[in-house]
Amino acid sequence: MIVVMSVQATAREVSDVIARIRAMGYDVHISEGKERTIIGVIGRGRPIDKEQIALMDGVVQVMSVTHPYKIASREYHPDDTLVPLNGIEVGGPNLAIIAGPCSVESREQILETAHAVKEAGATALRGGAFKPRTSPYSFQGLGEEGLVYLAEAREATGLPVVTEVMDPQLVPLVGQYADVFQIGARNMQNYALLHAVGESQKPVLLKRGMSSTIEELLMAAEYILSHGNMRVMLCERGIRTFETHTRNTFDINAVPALKHLTHLPVIADPSHAVGKWEYVESVSMAAIAAGADGIIVEVHPRPEEALSDGRQSLKPERFAALVEKLRHLAPIVGRRVPEVEAHHA
Amino acid sequence: MIVVMSVQATAREVSDVIARIRAMGYDVHISEGKERTIIGVIGRGRPIDKEQIALMDGVVQVMSVTHPYKIASREYHPDDTLVPLNGIEVGGPNLAIIAGPCSVESREQILETAHAVKEAGATALRGGAFKPRTSPYSFQGLGEEGLVYLAEAREATGLPVVTEVMDPQLVPLVGQYADVFQIGARNMQNYALLHAVGESQKPVLLKRGMSSTIEELLMAAEYILSHGNMRVMLCERGIRTFETHTRNTFDINAVPALKHLTHLPVIADPSHAVGKWEYVESVSMAAIAAGADGIIVEVHPRPEEALSDGRQSLKPERFAALVEKLRHLAPIVGRRVPEVEAHHA
Amino acid sequence: MIVVMSVQATAREVSDVIARIRAMGYDVHISEGKERTIIGVIGRGRPIDKEQIALMDGVVQVMSVTHPYKIASREYHPDDTLVPLNGIEVGGPNLAIIAGPCSVESREQILETAHAVKEAGATALRGGAFKPRTSPYSFQGLGEEGLVYLAEAREATGLPVVTEVMDPQLVPLVGQYADVFQIGARNMQNYALLHAVGESQKPVLLKRGMSSTIEELLMAAEYILSHGNMRVMLCERGIRTFETHTRNTFDINAVPALKHLTHLPVIADPSHAVGKWEYVESVSMAAIAAGADGIIVEVHPRPEEALSDGRQSLKPERFAALVEKLRHLAPIVGRRVPEVEAHHA
Amino acid sequence: MIVVMSVQATAREVSDVIARIRAMGYDVHISEGKERTIIGVIGRGRPIDKEQIALMDGVVQVMSVTHPYKIASREYHPDDTLVPLNGIEVGGPNLAIIAGPCSVESREQILETAHAVKEAGATALRGGAFKPRTSPYSFQGLGEEGLVYLAEAREATGLPVVTEVMDPQLVPLVGQYADVFQIGARNMQNYALLHAVGESQKPVLLKRGMSSTIEELLMAAEYILSHGNMRVMLCERGIRTFETHTRNTFDINAVPALKHLTHLPVIADPSHAVGKWEYVESVSMAAIAAGADGIIVEVHPRPEEALSDGRQSLKPERFAALVEKLRHLAPIVGRRVPEVEAHHA
Repeated sequence: MIVVMSVQATAREVSDVIARIRAMGYDVHISEGKERTIIGVIGRGRPIDKEQIALMDGVVQVMSVTHPYKIASREYHPDDTLVPLNGIEVGGPNLAIIAGPCSVESREQILETAHAVKEAGATALRGGAFKPRTSPYSFQGLGEEGLVYLAEAREATGLPVVTEVMDPQLVPLVGQYADVFQIGARNMQNYALLHAVGESQKPVLLKRGMSSTIEELLMAAEYILSHGNMRVMLCERGIRTFETHTRNTFDINAVPALKHLTHLPVIADPSHAVGKWEYVESVSMAAIAAGADGIIVEVHPRPEEALSDGRQSLKPERFAALVEKLRHLAPIVGRRVPEVEAHHA
Repeated sequence: MIVVMSVQATAREVSDVIARIRAMGYDVHISEGKERTIIGVIGRGRPIDKEQIALMDGVVQVMSVTHPYKIASREYHPDDTLVPLNGIEVGGPNLAIIAGPCSVESREQILETAHAVKEAGATALRGGAFKPRTSPYSFQGLGEEGLVYLAEAREATGLPVVTEVMDPQLVPLVGQYADVFQIGARNMQNYALLHAVGESQKPVLLKRGMSSTIEELLMAAEYILSHGNMRVMLCERGIRTFETHTRNTFDINAVPALKHLTHLPVIADPSHAVGKWEYVESVSMAAIAAGADGIIVEVHPRPEEALSDGRQSLKPERFAALVEKLRHLAPIVGRRVPEVEAHHA
Repeated sequence: MIVVMSVQATAREVSDVIARIRAMGYDVHISEGKERTIIGVIGRGRPIDKEQIALMDGVVQVMSVTHPYKIASREYHPDDTLVPLNGIEVGGPNLAIIAGPCSVESREQILETAHAVKEAGATALRGGAFKPRTSPYSFQGLGEEGLVYLAEAREATGLPVVTEVMDPQLVPLVGQYADVFQIGARNMQNYALLHAVGESQKPVLLKRGMSSTIEELLMAAEYILSHGNMRVMLCERGIRTFETHTRNTFDINAVPALKHLTHLPVIADPSHAVGKWEYVESVSMAAIAAGADGIIVEVHPRPEEALSDGRQSLKPERFAALVEKLRHLAPIVGRRVPEVEAHHA
Repeated sequence: MIVVMSVQATAREVSDVIARIRAMGYDVHISEGKERTIIGVIGRGRPIDKEQIALMDGVVQVMSVTHPYKIASREYHPDDTLVPLNGIEVGGPNLAIIAGPCSVESREQILETAHAVKEAGATALRGGAFKPRTSPYSFQGLGEEGLVYLAEAREATGLPVVTEVMDPQLVPLVGQYADVFQIGARNMQNYALLHAVGESQKPVLLKRGMSSTIEELLMAAEYILSHGNMRVMLCERGIRTFETHTRNTFDINAVPALKHLTHLPVIADPSHAVGKWEYVESVSMAAIAAGADGIIVEVHPRPEEALSDGRQSLKPERFAALVEKLRHLAPIVGRRVPEVEAHHA
């Protein structure tokens, strides 16, 4: 941390700042310029609040030099974290391809979709049983009944289940059925929920909030990691911008940025990012070309009948065509689409 | 709802759309233009999903004509909703002035602040016992101990307590101490939490999410209202934009817009919106001039020692000066700053 | 400027950075911490590019300590700049009230409007002769004919004319008719245009670009100031955000922020910021309550016939009611609405 | 266009709206629902302003059904527009690879860079002679001297020159040297400039404004097209969002969206979009994988000495590695990197 003193700061103000920093267990290095004094904060003391120092008399600015996250940072943990999923290690050479409907709508629907995406090459099945909906009058999901159908679909296809948990009280229940806990974008900073999944050892797919920065996403991951669960996959799903033609703006820059800043795997969700099925294939290809470790895509056998997100859902045959394209693209960036057949339950 | 068919739509496609809409219990009115057919959806049928219709063959666009929220809308409920608070009715001529520290840090700190803001003319005391913090390493609040101190401050000053609840499981506990539940910006779409406070009859201060639209704020309010609690106060606290000089951008447009769209009271939080105490007075004045029903402001006896948000906290004397200014401004817009002395406990 | 070296930086890398900074005419102050070395850049040398230093081996981060603008900053020029307009000094106690139609549509329309806004208390008349329109198929303004009508309206009412110039080649022509050059939001970074009006001595109303930061606005002002024209008024007219209910988001925070950072007057344009006439009065009141030096408002005798921006234009009687309200509000913030009658031509 | 009347609209208000629309040369189709009347506007009359109709008594909402751009739309012109550049047709199977420094800094620098990028496989050379800079104190480019050096570099390498024109007065001068006019992001809505290049027949590379929507970009293109120049290439260069880790956010969604909405070629500028050279390769790969017709990349022989944008410039060897990767990627999406050697001057 660096403290910049005002041009008008008195010697007393400078010494007060120094005394305060030392009282918190740090050393200081002082640079006395012609115009102003700059104080470098050195060592490891008690947590120090930039804002408090910023309010002291004579202080102009306080700047951080290091990241606010630790366990999530690649500096702390240079090697890629690998998260096991259906016989592959997400974050390694095999791409994770997670597919399924937005919501579980019926036993038939989820079974039909599970078989179709399995056939096409999916690594895991997604589907929501508890749905966060903007309107209280929209379909809210089947609840536990949906979880039961998901488990049945896993039984039938061998595909592990990725499903959202929205309420810390429901972590034990959802955990009985899910293979991966999904934390939705609206809950990225629901700390009680992050705490609850952090105490599990089940993999977590943590979606970036729609107006959260890359740093805030990593801080949310830090909540989970700091409670002991290291199996965190980050998910870029589009951010909110002024553009209205698409539902959100997929932040493709975030893919190389996250791979640079953290050791955690990065999954792309093109469906929510674009909101129109026509653009899902292009953005999926882009994400893998940019270095993502996998995708999560909405697939529905009859999108025009979907109870949610039909507009952005691929039909199974379009999803199969996408996987085929990814199969060709992956080797160009040192990856491969896994042959999941071998890992059948 | 209006369905615009493509120029190339076939008669069969048009009749399929019509059949589907009728099957959901609606009438249609058809406008056959030279270039394209437009279908108006009339009456009240089962909830209908725009997206599903948008995916039918031959459909170009589906447009809503009405708001997605009902109970929150002024069309549904033309008269202002008044929320009782310390002897005034928020939403009426008396302005609500809610003040206190970001966090309860100690018994002494909250008592000292409560007396100071009471003295200056506050209507209610704010203070966080459970704190949502971006970093797991930052101060997370005193928890129940903080609630106990808040209750003691109420006892001592007569000021009702506004405090945040972050977890649906803690609604009963927080409800034992709080007079108003605050829902923080990060939790505006935490539906389990909205559900829980919706089942209470205690007033709720619902903060707009930092990247939520006005419509989404009203939909979140609708969740609470639809569970039976009508005592909802909306809070504009700044939205996330590209500007970095201030912490957020206070959406002053939202004040007249909300007063126009809904009957619920609107409270302004200038402290979080600007992030620098120097600008808090100007933005408070602006909010009241624009028609807000009150403000919620961070006040700390020694901001430079605050464990959170010190940079944006007013000292008690600056807060007193602000109340004095509001006392002069209020009559210009048909309001008044209440004399709270009379309502002492 | 402060240069933070990497933990791994070698002594050679540190000395290379120091040598380079010294070669540009600066002194350095070096703070050697246990973990890393920090280099403070002192004095006034040749312009130095942060990015170049940031790319040198061993450098982690380069941080600025001072503002990039100079003449525009309040540190450089602590006293308020006052810009003469129709007998008042904008930036002083008298509020500037600039009103008129978006576009000059006809001789009758501009004369009728000029008389109406004069009557209601306006300080100056606005009206566009050259219109920047998103679509090449929209009305582009009357061009020089419009300027002639504006001059006639000035003749008839004594109101000075504020009108936009879009093209550096047209500065001499527009300057023959205008009393104030308006630079539109889309042209805030049209440097050839800023250069051209900077060489005039006529006042300039510089609108903030719809996605420009406060700092960028001040840098654009610096272009004009650095060419010798000190009569610059800044105009906050709303920024682009994710909110769609209003046309833009009026950045009320920018009012106190600009008054703090610069000595130039600040004018509010609520019409473009909200895009709906219903909200113009509230946001005008807010801007003045927050410390703005005046407003620029769209007024049209028959908004439903306006060739542009009718949706956000006030009718003359609503404008008169707004001025009346401002007359009551102004003294609360130490201002007054000038009695313009005395300055009749 | 569709006009939605209020539930309370009187028969007289409805007939007034109809009369007005007819007076402008349109037919109407009327849908009288139980609750409200909806009026469809049919045919091709005089340009009609939504806002004017929206202000008529009894009108609730006016909605567009068609795009505001015509010549730029794929509906108008279903076949891809191909723009000739150095023997290839941009928009066809050959990818355009445009590379060079941000600014021309010296004769040696541009010649060295031109040879290096030619060697690596570039299709054209970029370089700025007139530079739009946020600060009046930053390097503003070499002006005409820079154009002379660019022409010399073309002579030496056979690479056509892409360079920015910022001022309509300079279009003839820049046109003497440039093969492609670049319109910078800050000038996307500089209509005098769009008009001037629209009257030329030289290809134009039109950069999306940093906070312009896809629709606004197409409207800006429409200005050029409507003046007779069909050789327009669109350039996505990142939009302004709340994210600060990268300079801008590359809008990858815009790539498939533009290919869907328009027939014009789409070029990606990853350098400005990310602002850090480390991420340029990933975002370049992503753009081509998503369907872009080419890239424009900043390359500098010694980025740490660059007078502008050094932080985001690739060294020649990294650029060569990128082209090599694109050579492998291109066939996966039905493209190829052209062998430019054959087209040597």
